[in-house]
Amino acid sequence: LGLLPPLPFCFVWQIAMIILFGVFIRYDEESDTHWVETKAHDNITSDIENDFYFRYPSFQDVHVMIFVGFGFLMTFLKRYSFGAVGFNFLIASFGLQWALLMQGWFHSLDPQTGKIFIGVESLINADFCVAGCLIAYGAVLGKVSPVQLLVMTLFGVTLFAVEEYIILNLLHARDAGGSMVIHTFGGYYGLTISWVLYRPNLHQSKRMQGSVYHSDIFAMIGTLFLWMFWPSFNSAITDHGDGQHRAVINTYLCLASTVLTTVAISSLSQKTGKLDMVHIQNSTLAGGVALGTAAEFMISPYGALIVGFFCGIISTMGYIFISPFLEKTLKIQDTCGIHNLHAMPGVIGGIVGAITAAAASESVYGKQGLINTFDFTGDFKDRTVLTQGGYQAAGMCVSIVFGVVGGAIVGSILKLPIWGDPADENCFDDEVYWEVSEPATHHLLFIIQPLGGAIVFDLVSRDELQTTFEIFI
Amino acid sequence: LGLLPPLPFCFVWQIAMIILFGVFIRYDEESDTHWVETKAHDNITSDIENDFYFRYPSFQDVHVMIFVGFGFLMTFLKRYSFGAVGFNFLIASFGLQWALLMQGWFHSLDPQTGKIFIGVESLINADFCVAGCLIAYGAVLGKVSPVQLLVMTLFGVTLFAVEEYIILNLLHARDAGGSMVIHTFGGYYGLTISWVLYRPNLHQSKRMQGSVYHSDIFAMIGTLFLWMFWPSFNSAITDHGDGQHRAVINTYLCLASTVLTTVAISSLSQKTGKLDMVHIQNSTLAGGVALGTAAEFMISPYGALIVGFFCGIISTMGYIFISPFLEKTLKIQDTCGIHNLHAMPGVIGGIVGAITAAAASESVYGKQGLINTFDFTGDFKDRTVLTQGGYQAAGMCVSIVFGVVGGAIVGSILKLPIWGDPADENCFDDEVYWEVSEPATHHLLFIIQPLGGAIVFDLVSRDELQTTFEIFI
Amino acid sequence: LGLLPPLPFCFVWQIAMIILFGVFIRYDEESDTHWVETKAHDNITSDIENDFYFRYPSFQDVHVMIFVGFGFLMTFLKRYSFGAVGFNFLIASFGLQWALLMQGWFHSLDPQTGKIFIGVESLINADFCVAGCLIAYGAVLGKVSPVQLLVMTLFGVTLFAVEEYIILNLLHARDAGGSMVIHTFGGYYGLTISWVLYRPNLHQSKRMQGSVYHSDIFAMIGTLFLWMFWPSFNSAITDHGDGQHRAVINTYLCLASTVLTTVAISSLSQKTGKLDMVHIQNSTLAGGVALGTAAEFMISPYGALIVGFFCGIISTMGYIFISPFLEKTLKIQDTCGIHNLHAMPGVIGGIVGAITAAAASESVYGKQGLINTFDFTGDFKDRTVLTQGGYQAAGMCVSIVFGVVGGAIVGSILKLPIWGDPADENCFDDEVYWEVSEPATHHLLFIIQPLGGAIVFDLVSRDELQTTFEIFI
Repeated sequence: LGLLPPLPFCFVWQIAMIILFGVFIRYDEESDTHWVETKAHDNITSDIENDFYFRYPSFQDVHVMIFVGFGFLMTFLKRYSFGAVGFNFLIASFGLQWALLMQGWFHSLDPQTGKIFIGVESLINADFCVAGCLIAYGAVLGKVSPVQLLVMTLFGVTLFAVEEYIILNLLHARDAGGSMVIHTFGGYYGLTISWVLYRPNLHQSKRMQGSVYHSDIFAMIGTLFLWMFWPSFNSAITDHGDGQHRAVINTYLCLASTVLTTVAISSLSQKTGKLDMVHIQNSTLAGGVALGTAAEFMISPYGALIVGFFCGIISTMGYIFISPFLEKTLKIQDTCGIHNLHAMPGVIGGIVGAITAAAASESVYGKQGLINTFDFTGDFKDRTVLTQGGYQAAGMCVSIVFGVVGGAIVGSILKLPIWGDPADENCFDDEVYWEVSEPATHHLLFIIQPLGGAIVFDLVSRDELQTTFEIFI
Repeated sequence: LGLLPPLPFCFVWQIAMIILFGVFIRYDEESDTHWVETKAHDNITSDIENDFYFRYPSFQDVHVMIFVGFGFLMTFLKRYSFGAVGFNFLIASFGLQWALLMQGWFHSLDPQTGKIFIGVESLINADFCVAGCLIAYGAVLGKVSPVQLLVMTLFGVTLFAVEEYIILNLLHARDAGGSMVIHTFGGYYGLTISWVLYRPNLHQSKRMQGSVYHSDIFAMIGTLFLWMFWPSFNSAITDHGDGQHRAVINTYLCLASTVLTTVAISSLSQKTGKLDMVHIQNSTLAGGVALGTAAEFMISPYGALIVGFFCGIISTMGYIFISPFLEKTLKIQDTCGIHNLHAMPGVIGGIVGAITAAAASESVYGKQGLINTFDFTGDFKDRTVLTQGGYQAAGMCVSIVFGVVGGAIVGSILKLPIWGDPADENCFDDEVYWEVSEPATHHLLFIIQPLGGAIVFDLVSRDELQTTFEIFI
Repeated sequence: LGLLPPLPFCFVWQIAMIILFGVFIRYDEESDTHWVETKAHDNITSDIENDFYFRYPSFQDVHVMIFVGFGFLMTFLKRYSFGAVGFNFLIASFGLQWALLMQGWFHSLDPQTGKIFIGVESLINADFCVAGCLIAYGAVLGKVSPVQLLVMTLFGVTLFAVEEYIILNLLHARDAGGSMVIHTFGGYYGLTISWVLYRPNLHQSKRMQGSVYHSDIFAMIGTLFLWMFWPSFNSAITDHGDGQHRAVINTYLCLASTVLTTVAISSLSQKTGKLDMVHIQNSTLAGGVALGTAAEFMISPYGALIVGFFCGIISTMGYIFISPFLEKTLKIQDTCGIHNLHAMPGVIGGIVGAITAAAASESVYGKQGLINTFDFTGDFKDRTVLTQGGYQAAGMCVSIVFGVVGGAIVGSILKLPIWGDPADENCFDDEVYWEVSEPATHHLLFIIQPLGGAIVFDLVSRDELQTTFEIFI
């Protein structure tokens, strides 16, 4: 059935990882037993100054977002929950190892020793990197094989590390919560792949494409963990102290605002005024995406509310108007609607970031505060906020270009007929890749046999025969 | 269908919030970029001293309790899980913005600048404030429209801020985990509203009022996240250091004790000795409620166990004896049994707090410890523990009065026939307010009867007919 | 129905706990109001140095693992989810109180005052202790009564405290994440009990022993929370600073590696190349178990990957080959496969720990780092790493012996016909111990058509046919 290929791939890949980690990856000075000497040397008085205590709670929240948040958000389909949670689990575990290497080579390779030194911040960044690929997964959910997902993740992480290097290091743009680097890139990467893999006969799987009652509730687990922990996401790698503190406040407020406008538009969208679960599950999160870049800036509490206000509207409108347009006109089949949840809000986030940066002033930030927030040090110590705004905008363009061009290339690779993707009539169905104990036609089966004067109803469960019903005629 | 009203309401409300936040809300000194100057000025050596690092992990736990805990706890009904999780999400997001303003005006309006300065503790307090309204939601679950919920939350938050100001600031009572301020108030507020909105014909929705197997498991997600994170709830805003530490230990122990007595009473309540999921889902949490006030006191580990011991008994007894009494005699229809989970344990918590405060002594607390714990400083530096006990008791009365009177007034407003509440036969049904992919006639069973020459198949729901399955022709 | 016994047991037990806590348990100096004096005395400048801030985030993660992780992992059975989550909740709450006493008496009884002083680390250790019993529960899931579980937990915690004392204090072995102390002991304890309680006619409950689609997704909630928070588990009680930091990095990497090899072997195990949910739910966690001992050592990132690599393979192989062998040949019915998830990986973890310890060197650890990591102080200041390796291995043997001998004794007690365990044909069925609102039979829909003389019932899924329901005879 075409699934065997992942096997050698996973093995070989994992062995390659072990070798590369052996060659390159070491503990950094805060996670090494020599920390006791570092402390003495740097005159650090307490272990609590270890970066671990600044970032570990945020890291764990991000970790939950990656595995439970993204995983369960995609369980909304009636019979693709194993694939949603299970493949999400697989590609995240796969991708984060590669991300540690790729990001290490690009961002933190020690020139003297040739080693990459990792600590808790590296783990957060690896999770971030993987998030880009999980976003892309949302566009092709149910239509690709696990091998295709692994390939997509392998290239996705690679592209991510490069664009991140260009945006954060070369352009020196700020993007703490990854509006550009994670969401814009991941969104367009996934959409372009989905466009290349367009299936004109996907309607043959239409019976599988909806949700059932309980699958929608499972999806809400994903939604809520993403929503609740997004402040941690946007603050996980910002500056110690006020940087993390402010990013949390901004994201918290922005997301609350998004919920209200999402509900408003959703109820407007139906003649009956009813709410649509798809909107509640997804559009409520758009504010967190859009505040990714500006979360650490002095956007001010009401500024955060404004961003959330518009994102809730735009994202829900996206589900109502743009998604059907994308599918019919542009031939982009976007299973989870990542265009409305990640791509568009990511672009908005990039723009908001550029404007907020350009509008920053010493009177608001304070002299040292401005330097700290935008890291105007070293080569960039003479950069003005206006220039910074320009580079922020340039960064956004880079992320779009990487997403579209990278997606086109990777999509072409995935189009090769060697990856064991499901047939058009078997999309969105877990039975293709999973041992499922019951058939998709839920519930009980009967065999009815005439038996003398009686009709005997035999109840047949998926597993075996259960009870006997008898009918006397 | 009467749902359209929320739309302009949400929009207008959100715009009002943006304006008010613009006028009033600013970052506090720990989340502002001027933190670097504050540090220098106050001689703070490390960013780790920022209040963020003391409270953020607890905040996130509280946040999970509000959105996943309360939300999923209410999913137990067979067809009201969208409403449980979704409306919980809506009113919490709505309420927390208003809470930041109301609490800010009452507690932390800077007289010089006219601004409210917010930090992580403000976010926790906003979540706490919202909790009061979510508790009230439990009483009216399935019987009100989302607009009614928004109105209820709007007034609930307003009342909360006032009673909180009276109890904590004027009476100078201590209530770290909100036994009085949150649970007693929220409980009686919801119960009184439910009493005003009494539906004599609610039995017409009886078919929808039970749980199904999987909805009970979803509800356990809510129960467990509330239970596990309650130590964070009770310690989130207590004093740094031993205050937070002790509140966690006390709550942890108290809740463990509650589970055992809940199970004991639950199995006694059935002739068969079986356990009832309703008790396990709810009464196991009563200990956390009842320790809200005293969690930060030196109640001692065995004292915490004793509180939990009695709360498990009383709360479970409440579900068995008091809830039917409330419904039949007092005409209070309490969907989730918040009387047993919040109102009663909240009152117990207030009493426990008053007694523990009155019994405090310098020999146990230490001189400075006593001052720190009860904040006997400023205007209150001469207060004795006995006086403190009295004020604690007075605080509890205030919370009850605010709940009952406030609930009566708000209930009367909600009784106006303009809010689009569901008909008596459509209560507890998501289809009234949500696009639901499958019909509510879940689980079909049939009665087949001869009727003239035809065979008539009657569709019956699982609960009404289980076993009979006969066909006579 | 034999369930009544838990009632007096829980009551009496809880009262006994209150008395014992009253006699023995006190707040430690970091959670007592005298902390302000301790600070002054020890020259501690900030409350943030309170151990609470080092360990509370990890504690909460561990707490989630115990109650949601273990609880939901066991919900995979189609009709035993109440028992899985509910009894897990009961015995954990029951066990942690006894654990605080037992561990206190053995590890931290103050000789002068005769008191046990508890703080956040005590809570973590109590949760750890309970984990051993929850592991054992996995082997007997669905086959024992709640009273049997309480008895099993009572003795399990007692045995745990003794073996832990021998291993950690007398042998001075290191076991931060409890590969030996928790997983090996708990695994063999449960397996031996299951062996004693062997039911030759268990096949009579075969209809209940599988999963259904949604129960498998519920189980994934447990899997993911265990997987995500395992770094917190292995680092919760390691040394401040680099110790916690390094344990997190190692566990994070190890678990990622495990996922890949689990998927590889799982897809190999089926002729169709499909994946098996049982493997994904369980074997992906084996790496965390196996790194429990060595997580705090300088095993290096690639070393962690190697451990995960082999654990994924071995654990999945265990489900495919060893579990059937255990059941058929050794007569061990292991419902959750704890042999593959805890016992075997625990032994591997002990061996890995012994080897890593024996291979430790000053050149890698640094002089002070080596002393800190292995706590070569006091009586053990002259111990060499080789000796340490030997004692680590000895520790593992102790945990196996305690598990097997203890399990045999406790199993014999549980075999007495007084505990109300379910009949062979009622195993894995919640209805024995819980009020369940609906019967185990599921949902039906029919099309009935005349076909010659027979009546043909066509089964249709809910989605395809809703309304049409006609019979022509």
